[in-house]
Amino acid sequence: MTIEGSKQTTASGKIRLGMVGGGQGAFIGAVHRIAARLDDQYDLVAGALSSDPERAMASAADLGIAADRSYASFEEMAKAEAARPDGIEAVSIVTPNHMHAPAAKAFLNAGIHVICDKPITTTVEEARELVSLAEQSGKIFALTHNYTGYPMIRQAKAMVDQGELGDIRVVQVEYPQDWLATRAEASGSKQAEWRTDPKRSGAGGCIGDIGTHAYNLASFVTGLELDQLLADLTTFVEGRLLDDDVQILLRFKGGAKGHLWASQVAVGNENQLKLRVFGTKAGLEWVQADPNYLWFTRFGEPKQLLTRGGAGAWDEASRMSRIPGGHPEGYLEGFANIYSEIAAAIRAARTGGKAAADVTFPSVYDGLKGMQFIEAAVASSQNGNVWTKLP
Amino acid sequence: MTIEGSKQTTASGKIRLGMVGGGQGAFIGAVHRIAARLDDQYDLVAGALSSDPERAMASAADLGIAADRSYASFEEMAKAEAARPDGIEAVSIVTPNHMHAPAAKAFLNAGIHVICDKPITTTVEEARELVSLAEQSGKIFALTHNYTGYPMIRQAKAMVDQGELGDIRVVQVEYPQDWLATRAEASGSKQAEWRTDPKRSGAGGCIGDIGTHAYNLASFVTGLELDQLLADLTTFVEGRLLDDDVQILLRFKGGAKGHLWASQVAVGNENQLKLRVFGTKAGLEWVQADPNYLWFTRFGEPKQLLTRGGAGAWDEASRMSRIPGGHPEGYLEGFANIYSEIAAAIRAARTGGKAAADVTFPSVYDGLKGMQFIEAAVASSQNGNVWTKLP
Amino acid sequence: MTIEGSKQTTASGKIRLGMVGGGQGAFIGAVHRIAARLDDQYDLVAGALSSDPERAMASAADLGIAADRSYASFEEMAKAEAARPDGIEAVSIVTPNHMHAPAAKAFLNAGIHVICDKPITTTVEEARELVSLAEQSGKIFALTHNYTGYPMIRQAKAMVDQGELGDIRVVQVEYPQDWLATRAEASGSKQAEWRTDPKRSGAGGCIGDIGTHAYNLASFVTGLELDQLLADLTTFVEGRLLDDDVQILLRFKGGAKGHLWASQVAVGNENQLKLRVFGTKAGLEWVQADPNYLWFTRFGEPKQLLTRGGAGAWDEASRMSRIPGGHPEGYLEGFANIYSEIAAAIRAARTGGKAAADVTFPSVYDGLKGMQFIEAAVASSQNGNVWTKLP
Amino acid sequence: MTIEGSKQTTASGKIRLGMVGGGQGAFIGAVHRIAARLDDQYDLVAGALSSDPERAMASAADLGIAADRSYASFEEMAKAEAARPDGIEAVSIVTPNHMHAPAAKAFLNAGIHVICDKPITTTVEEARELVSLAEQSGKIFALTHNYTGYPMIRQAKAMVDQGELGDIRVVQVEYPQDWLATRAEASGSKQAEWRTDPKRSGAGGCIGDIGTHAYNLASFVTGLELDQLLADLTTFVEGRLLDDDVQILLRFKGGAKGHLWASQVAVGNENQLKLRVFGTKAGLEWVQADPNYLWFTRFGEPKQLLTRGGAGAWDEASRMSRIPGGHPEGYLEGFANIYSEIAAAIRAARTGGKAAADVTFPSVYDGLKGMQFIEAAVASSQNGNVWTKLP
Repeated sequence: MTIEGSKQTTASGKIRLGMVGGGQGAFIGAVHRIAARLDDQYDLVAGALSSDPERAMASAADLGIAADRSYASFEEMAKAEAARPDGIEAVSIVTPNHMHAPAAKAFLNAGIHVICDKPITTTVEEARELVSLAEQSGKIFALTHNYTGYPMIRQAKAMVDQGELGDIRVVQVEYPQDWLATRAEASGSKQAEWRTDPKRSGAGGCIGDIGTHAYNLASFVTGLELDQLLADLTTFVEGRLLDDDVQILLRFKGGAKGHLWASQVAVGNENQLKLRVFGTKAGLEWVQADPNYLWFTRFGEPKQLLTRGGAGAWDEASRMSRIPGGHPEGYLEGFANIYSEIAAAIRAARTGGKAAADVTFPSVYDGLKGMQFIEAAVASSQNGNVWTKLP
Repeated sequence: MTIEGSKQTTASGKIRLGMVGGGQGAFIGAVHRIAARLDDQYDLVAGALSSDPERAMASAADLGIAADRSYASFEEMAKAEAARPDGIEAVSIVTPNHMHAPAAKAFLNAGIHVICDKPITTTVEEARELVSLAEQSGKIFALTHNYTGYPMIRQAKAMVDQGELGDIRVVQVEYPQDWLATRAEASGSKQAEWRTDPKRSGAGGCIGDIGTHAYNLASFVTGLELDQLLADLTTFVEGRLLDDDVQILLRFKGGAKGHLWASQVAVGNENQLKLRVFGTKAGLEWVQADPNYLWFTRFGEPKQLLTRGGAGAWDEASRMSRIPGGHPEGYLEGFANIYSEIAAAIRAARTGGKAAADVTFPSVYDGLKGMQFIEAAVASSQNGNVWTKLP
Repeated sequence: MTIEGSKQTTASGKIRLGMVGGGQGAFIGAVHRIAARLDDQYDLVAGALSSDPERAMASAADLGIAADRSYASFEEMAKAEAARPDGIEAVSIVTPNHMHAPAAKAFLNAGIHVICDKPITTTVEEARELVSLAEQSGKIFALTHNYTGYPMIRQAKAMVDQGELGDIRVVQVEYPQDWLATRAEASGSKQAEWRTDPKRSGAGGCIGDIGTHAYNLASFVTGLELDQLLADLTTFVEGRLLDDDVQILLRFKGGAKGHLWASQVAVGNENQLKLRVFGTKAGLEWVQADPNYLWFTRFGEPKQLLTRGGAGAWDEASRMSRIPGGHPEGYLEGFANIYSEIAAAIRAARTGGKAAADVTFPSVYDGLKGMQFIEAAVASSQNGNVWTKLP
Repeated sequence: MTIEGSKQTTASGKIRLGMVGGGQGAFIGAVHRIAARLDDQYDLVAGALSSDPERAMASAADLGIAADRSYASFEEMAKAEAARPDGIEAVSIVTPNHMHAPAAKAFLNAGIHVICDKPITTTVEEARELVSLAEQSGKIFALTHNYTGYPMIRQAKAMVDQGELGDIRVVQVEYPQDWLATRAEASGSKQAEWRTDPKRSGAGGCIGDIGTHAYNLASFVTGLELDQLLADLTTFVEGRLLDDDVQILLRFKGGAKGHLWASQVAVGNENQLKLRVFGTKAGLEWVQADPNYLWFTRFGEPKQLLTRGGAGAWDEASRMSRIPGGHPEGYLEGFANIYSEIAAAIRAARTGGKAAADVTFPSVYDGLKGMQFIEAAVASSQNGNVWTKLP
């Protein structure tokens, strides 16, 4: 055990951040704010926190945002902030899905970096537009697939990259929840309402909300490109408009296969995201609810339990960690790691440079891939569960 | 905790048992013998233990079988034992798969009850013949899908039967192993040789060896009938003749869906059979490697860890158990439970009766279903992974 | 994974076994019988199964013991069996504690090997007498501290013996149960009655029933000699006559220290016996309820989870095992291992020889040590919790 | 599962905070800063971050502290800040132990609230002086026994308080680590150096560093007052000046007993703090490394696994939580909870009021108790391991 944590924090020259969405009553906005704050890299100085003007203003006051930088709309905010000498350098977009694209466009066009919640948009087409716009603008576009920020996920990826697993054969990923096992959207849950509403969520329900997380995580760790999928999307809860359970067979380029299961009706599961990767030489297993552990087993050798901060932790994990082994880090620290990686990129961009090579975070391209994944899965399912190529 | 175990053993009038296969160097034969012995219900008195005559004789001597009841072939054994006044009442068939059907026929024809290892045959046709023959003969035909003998599996089934889970929505079952991650069949492993040889195993490799176990277990606990499946069978190890990894989407009659994964290349897994069942009211989770535990979660309530012999154990579990909670029972006890259930049926049959209603064990019909499952999966996979109806 | 189990069974020339105690309604007698039967090394042919003659006879009939070898008393049995040419070679004594010594004496005097449940007697004095008598008689005296029969405990011992842990510093052992959290002895539990009755149990309650198991296990694995102890014995349940919770500080010869906790009022625990050993080079952890696992951690290296039958299992574990890794063995198999080790010794003794060097089981000396441990703990506690030397 | 987190953050009117110690190369200072920042309740505006003036200045620059508020000594800082209209309201003292008392005195005397790392001082006498001074000053004195900030620890405490466990009988608490299993203090570890140096740590090594945490946690959850203890302190690593392993028998007022084990040589353990409480009605178990879980078992009922944010979480837990169940919170969040509780008290004190009744954090009295615990344990051990009364 090293007592010293590895993560270095530099507070000077904090990044001026704005936020769209995330006002009173929202969930993920508060998470983004904590994530931005944890390593002291950002100052939240502006917001269009709610489509309801009163709530927007009250929320801004709660958060110590000056009244004149609390905006009634993201359009206004993008324009006004771009015009200020001390305007925001980056914006976090934490609205329901259907607002991601218009908001992102406004800020990219205003020359402001974008940090966007997932899934990136509600359609592939919008996602493609954002890719183009991001490329043209030269601005950073980060997507908060936060699970890629967990230290032991970074280690898992590094182990795969460096050949510890040999050639990957099988990838099993699953994300069961149970909070939509009943029709919560009909009994007043705001979170359930928009997540089960095609207008605000897009064509995918469970697959968009958590299936994309599972897909992104599997892709991140294995480095494999999904070639085709065969999906069976189901709506178990009567009256629900979108899928709440997703079974998908996976075929990766290079011959690996696998399975992705996401469910919001799996009673007894909170956020039981789990990834298993099996190669010719070794296997890995990681569970989000217990993220400080990584099981690693070489063929024919005893199972090893690697721990964040413990013996067996690689630099790739330690770099993303703040405290010694045995003192658990959690979801917020993983989320903060994404924000801090983005911060490194923004700081580098201030002087026209690039962040160090090991700085990594999900990008607009991952967002597009996520939408293509959703689109392919919905199509496969609608077409009778047939193999469907990813573009 | 009750200190007293619940299982009652009656040793008087033990059942005279023979065995086909299971000589020196075999694996599952020894397991059957321990299972038969554990509750003291059987006497092993005859055998055709090996196709190699010398090994047969030596094996019999090892096991205390009289020389004149050690036979060179099962045909001879069936004939001779049927002719003896103290001939065997039942035979255990523990050969490689391709010998199950001919041996079973010989003993059924000789009026001897059959206890057969799984899968029942190598083809659906043979399995159908055995069903007919078993029906005609009026003899008991038991199949050792031993996992159905675990006490907490009995409880799981009872909980589903009595509505504790509500309507079943999702069934996830998996059976990963890693012992065939390399080409063990080419380096002298007898167990690997016949299991990867289509002539001795049938059309299924991994799916026949462990996929059928997973399917049988899911069927047993949920009571659901599989309507159709969509399978992707893969052979990852070069040069292997049968599948070593199996991904199957499941659709049950009544609307439940699910997924079955079996693999023999999942490095880091020994015999990690796991069943999860999710209903409208509650969920269940059980893992074979830790069989004394059953997770049970009612929607909106804390997770419960039910233990064999502990508070929360039902009669259905206690009936199959010998020792107090916290003192683990294992694989052999579960296997023995199947043998003891069969013994109850054989004893009842002695006087033309039926065993008590709660006595249950896998039958020739389960054997047929297993073969139909294999056949459908192989067909689905060969036909491009399409939905394939079970008969 | 090896598919083949390692344990070899030889059924020829089974050992003729008798039993004292263990009639209908008893608990541990049935466990002994299964343990004796599992590897097919013994034939149970005689018994004095109950002090109640009718129950003795009925129990014998249940077990297939001939009526003329069902005795009304152990004295009669010892005499009669010694006189028969086919008399028993060994006897299992499974009565309440206070009957162990008189019964053992009768059989040793009759030239019959003794297998005795623990604790060996109710006083140190009686235990000393048994040691003398056993030495004089030249007969085997085995004590069923069954936990030493678990394969991974054998491995743990071997790892310590071969220096894998370096010098032992700290030994933490605990055995919490909860079945005596209320006054069960006052509400009809036979098991609770005699275990809380000084006349039948001796001076120790919890410490005799399970504390000795914990002490024996720690001694077996570490090979350390206990030098002194400091005990605090408590009776939490009002009206109870013996201790139901035990806290003991331990000092071993050579400088290792440790702690033993045993409790029968630790609500939520079934039989949660756990041993942890920490040396200069590595640490070990084992839990009886999950006995197929052994945690092993070298200083500065990742934690390893060793599994029975898996990669990392040593010969010392495999020798005591029947089935492949991932298929759990349990309490009965561990108990059976003790019986089979004893069988090896008895077989060797038939021809005046000694069993192979690796055959080991708890002996009359371990029994004496257990009684000295109880005596020292009771004395320490009564004298104000002072350090008390072991003889 | 509720998606909405429960914790409310109010950023307006942040508390002006200073820090003593915690400059470059320190460990716990960074933890305090994150904890203060997480809920956005504090602004770190002043510091005497190192006894080395250059390092103090560089550290302050790193942290965005204005150069004129980076002080060369805490005396200077206390004086200067007290004199500023915008001076700090509270100070965090995160130096080695021996500096806690002089620093705390300086700030209390200057009318500034104190947040002090544990143990509070190096002697009982100093601790008593701080109690007096804190009482006289009317200022808040908080001690960062951070484990009391974990949500499920709050729930455990509430469950005990509300009688869910009945009368407490047995309390088992342990805190094993392994980072001092070798003589790290001789090979350049700063953290090891001062922790094993009596001049900087006081009379207790392991007992002061982590034993006090274990004691504080057990006291907090059970609400029991320790009456006497019997300790055996050991130094296993040659050349070390303070204890590195601690075994303590506990007797609480009212009759409960228990055991505390803390070790820094328990190879294989990182920060494996574990608390178990057993009452007449139920038992509890909690492990710091997996803090989102709380095992709760009513006598005669199935074990329940309560999860932070999940079904079965009480308000006392939810109040201390930010994100949904299944998304783990960790050490930093628990630490932040202590800071936010203190913030509530400081805000209330601004207007001469008191925080809400459920606001709670460790105080100067807990600090005194911790020192009395250390002193009693050292005395008990030196006097031959005798029962020693707490004052």
